[in-house]
Amino acid sequence: MKAYKELLEINEKIHNLNHLSAIAYWDQEAMMPSGSNDARSKALAQLGVLIHEESTSEKIADLLELAKDEELNSKEQSSLFELKRSYDLQTILPSKLVKAKSLAGSKCGHAWREQRKNNDWKGFLPNLEEVIKLTREEANIRASHTGLTPYDSLLDLYEPGMNSKTLDSIFSDLKSWLPKLISDVVEKQKKQSFMKPVGPFEIEKQKELGLKVMNHLGFDFTRGRIDISSHPFCGGVPEDVRITTRYDENDFIQSLMGTVHETGHARYEQNLPLSYISLPVGNARSMGIHESQSLFFEMQMGRGRPFLESIHSYILESFGNTEAFSIDNLCKIYNHVKPDYIRVDADEVTYPAHVMLRYEIEKALINGELEAKDIPEVWDAKMQSYLGINTKGNYKDGVMQDVHWTEGLIGYFPSYTLGAMYAAQQFNTVKQKFPDVNERISKGDFSQVFTWLKENIWQEASFHSTNDLIKNATGESLNPKYFKEHLINRYLKD
Amino acid sequence: MKAYKELLEINEKIHNLNHLSAIAYWDQEAMMPSGSNDARSKALAQLGVLIHEESTSEKIADLLELAKDEELNSKEQSSLFELKRSYDLQTILPSKLVKAKSLAGSKCGHAWREQRKNNDWKGFLPNLEEVIKLTREEANIRASHTGLTPYDSLLDLYEPGMNSKTLDSIFSDLKSWLPKLISDVVEKQKKQSFMKPVGPFEIEKQKELGLKVMNHLGFDFTRGRIDISSHPFCGGVPEDVRITTRYDENDFIQSLMGTVHETGHARYEQNLPLSYISLPVGNARSMGIHESQSLFFEMQMGRGRPFLESIHSYILESFGNTEAFSIDNLCKIYNHVKPDYIRVDADEVTYPAHVMLRYEIEKALINGELEAKDIPEVWDAKMQSYLGINTKGNYKDGVMQDVHWTEGLIGYFPSYTLGAMYAAQQFNTVKQKFPDVNERISKGDFSQVFTWLKENIWQEASFHSTNDLIKNATGESLNPKYFKEHLINRYLKD
Repeated sequence: MKAYKELLEINEKIHNLNHLSAIAYWDQEAMMPSGSNDARSKALAQLGVLIHEESTSEKIADLLELAKDEELNSKEQSSLFELKRSYDLQTILPSKLVKAKSLAGSKCGHAWREQRKNNDWKGFLPNLEEVIKLTREEANIRASHTGLTPYDSLLDLYEPGMNSKTLDSIFSDLKSWLPKLISDVVEKQKKQSFMKPVGPFEIEKQKELGLKVMNHLGFDFTRGRIDISSHPFCGGVPEDVRITTRYDENDFIQSLMGTVHETGHARYEQNLPLSYISLPVGNARSMGIHESQSLFFEMQMGRGRPFLESIHSYILESFGNTEAFSIDNLCKIYNHVKPDYIRVDADEVTYPAHVMLRYEIEKALINGELEAKDIPEVWDAKMQSYLGINTKGNYKDGVMQDVHWTEGLIGYFPSYTLGAMYAAQQFNTVKQKFPDVNERISKGDFSQVFTWLKENIWQEASFHSTNDLIKNATGESLNPKYFKEHLINRYLKD
Repeated sequence: MKAYKELLEINEKIHNLNHLSAIAYWDQEAMMPSGSNDARSKALAQLGVLIHEESTSEKIADLLELAKDEELNSKEQSSLFELKRSYDLQTILPSKLVKAKSLAGSKCGHAWREQRKNNDWKGFLPNLEEVIKLTREEANIRASHTGLTPYDSLLDLYEPGMNSKTLDSIFSDLKSWLPKLISDVVEKQKKQSFMKPVGPFEIEKQKELGLKVMNHLGFDFTRGRIDISSHPFCGGVPEDVRITTRYDENDFIQSLMGTVHETGHARYEQNLPLSYISLPVGNARSMGIHESQSLFFEMQMGRGRPFLESIHSYILESFGNTEAFSIDNLCKIYNHVKPDYIRVDADEVTYPAHVMLRYEIEKALINGELEAKDIPEVWDAKMQSYLGINTKGNYKDGVMQDVHWTEGLIGYFPSYTLGAMYAAQQFNTVKQKFPDVNERISKGDFSQVFTWLKENIWQEASFHSTNDLIKNATGESLNPKYFKEHLINRYLKD
């Protein structure tokens, strides 16, 4: 096991450097004063170069080759597989292309911040075209190594094992029932009214409430914390998870559920197996599985009546007992469905339509069936068809709303909806296994849920393929029917 | 200038990595949850190794040699001098000794935390002996390179250019008048009574007050911040200075002046010349000069009546107008002198006695004239003689009170008193130059002070030797008489 052991040492070093990078990045978003941005960006870029050098050294290729012939137990074999996968993904591209794409992405993303405000599609397009050109190059090179289609080879970066064939079937199924379901839910909710809680809600009290709810959900405060940033995220390292949120004095509803969402990500990270934490195999399985944990917390549990019952007293303690905080009204608020322009603000019913649209467009872009200049037309047609929304000429709330494509992050969007589906399937299994789970949740007892997630998802890290992980956990491969059932049960049954 | 330019590039890289190390260290002290300590310590150690490798590569030796023959302007020549000094200091020791000392220091420091609480000198002694043994080795190796005495070669790490001969003369002068001055002041203050402000003082209000005072003192919040840690310090990097403080609900007096002290350090860092910031020559001149800035802020200005007048309204705004907050009473509180055991809690009159005692002991230790086991006896005799205090058998408030020696930090203590003396000499010059400076300060106008400090100290960084820096700034070399005059004026005149 000499070579494998040497690989462990190298990865221990990389893990240590990644730790500092993650904390400095978190600090940049949550703590750093604005005037320090240049110095910090340079410092992080410098460390990034070092980490890249360490991760892509030729020595690793030799060691991976040697380790193949060593006697390894099954976990070590999974680990070696993931080490090789990670090394290949990082070394396939010529460094010239990596640099060019990084520069083009920075340029496009930087200009986009202003261009979006000004609805300036014309200014944005040439930058986006450059990014897409380079991402196509990347996809083609990756494809020639992986044997996958160009788009699938990008998808594989975030969802190893997933492919367009499966996604096409998932989304074509979705397309057959989702638009109708959305309009049925909208129609049904028209007849219901709800009260909007009236603020102001003191930020300090919102913080306290958030901390109570995180504690309630098992967040380990000895190895993590929550702070404020303009874009909430889950960062840091598994040994020190840093989640962020933002507060609005007039509305605690969204921030609170945002905290529940990030707590789902955080608990996954905090419960990855510590003895493998410096290795790729000890990391989260995929972006979709990561999102399944945040959506398990936020959507499957968080917006459900039993969970709202469990935190009801906390809300009353923070903001007093008013009619707007009745369980019935809270359920209505947290399950309100409204087709709208912006993906990140979407409810769980319309959200998959936003993802489907992006998936179809980005796949066509990478496979050369669509050019950037034609996106707005396609965007509008799909928004009309899926959500009944007109986006003509409204670029800033249309194609220019997301940061992903500006930075060349293509192949990532499907993870959001895969996450929603994995979450529904996981919670379905938990409910089968523990028929009283909702009753327990309503009393604030999450032991069944957390024990199951820990054993079946969190501690499993990347020891198995995503498909095996989900089969071992739920008895079958990804099956979107559980997501559909969940939506029907929550939004159409009474 | 090819070689010199290459040195700039290498130092840019080191500066970037030091940036991340400083922020991660700050985070560890001010933000990090306790359970993440092991992972963080490992990550910082890893980066420390990388920085050490970069800073001590043989390539630098070659470049330093080549650069000597290049055409450099006078600032670049100073820069090259400091580059060589920094390289030599870091490469003189065999890495085996560096490692052994680091391990012995960690072991001694770690055990000390418990041993001090238990007054366990017997348990502490063998660890301390090992640290001193290794520090002697270090001093001897350094001495053989520098041609200085062993102790002076340690002193030179923190106070380049300073030596025991000068210190002996400074301290022997001090010894001739300080004990008498202390007893005169104590006698005089016996006749004065003052009122202790009675809390509680809400932490949030103390924070607000601290921020106002920092703002008052010109702290640049676009490139720095203040937070809480158990041991206040000034950390971060010049582009992003992080100071810390701690709050006690029953006493805002100490914390407030602590913030003034750290703000002095911070303004020095924030006003170092940015175009040289990644080079040794762009760093603070010495530990003594650094301390002179914090003591200029805290002692020369902060505890003086004009400054207290300038922040009086802030204190009333925060905690109401009570008799205890009259200017007279505040002056008495902030200038109360009391010989006592603990250095870090000492007033500016008794503080030099604490330093003198440590200087005499550590010099004898390194020069082989004293053994660790005999420290308590010498300690007690000197405490009796300088401050009239009995420390027999009380190790925890005697020799075991400081962290410095436990970690092998020997040669550092004199910087505190040098700082006090430099500060007095600097403020004397400012008063000569601007006769109305105290009147201006009392109105919150610090422009004379800050312009002078910026031009004469901050922006000068390490372009000149400490002696030249202080001569250029004040017209003469270090002259302790200004410190003596300051003490007499503040504490004995009425």
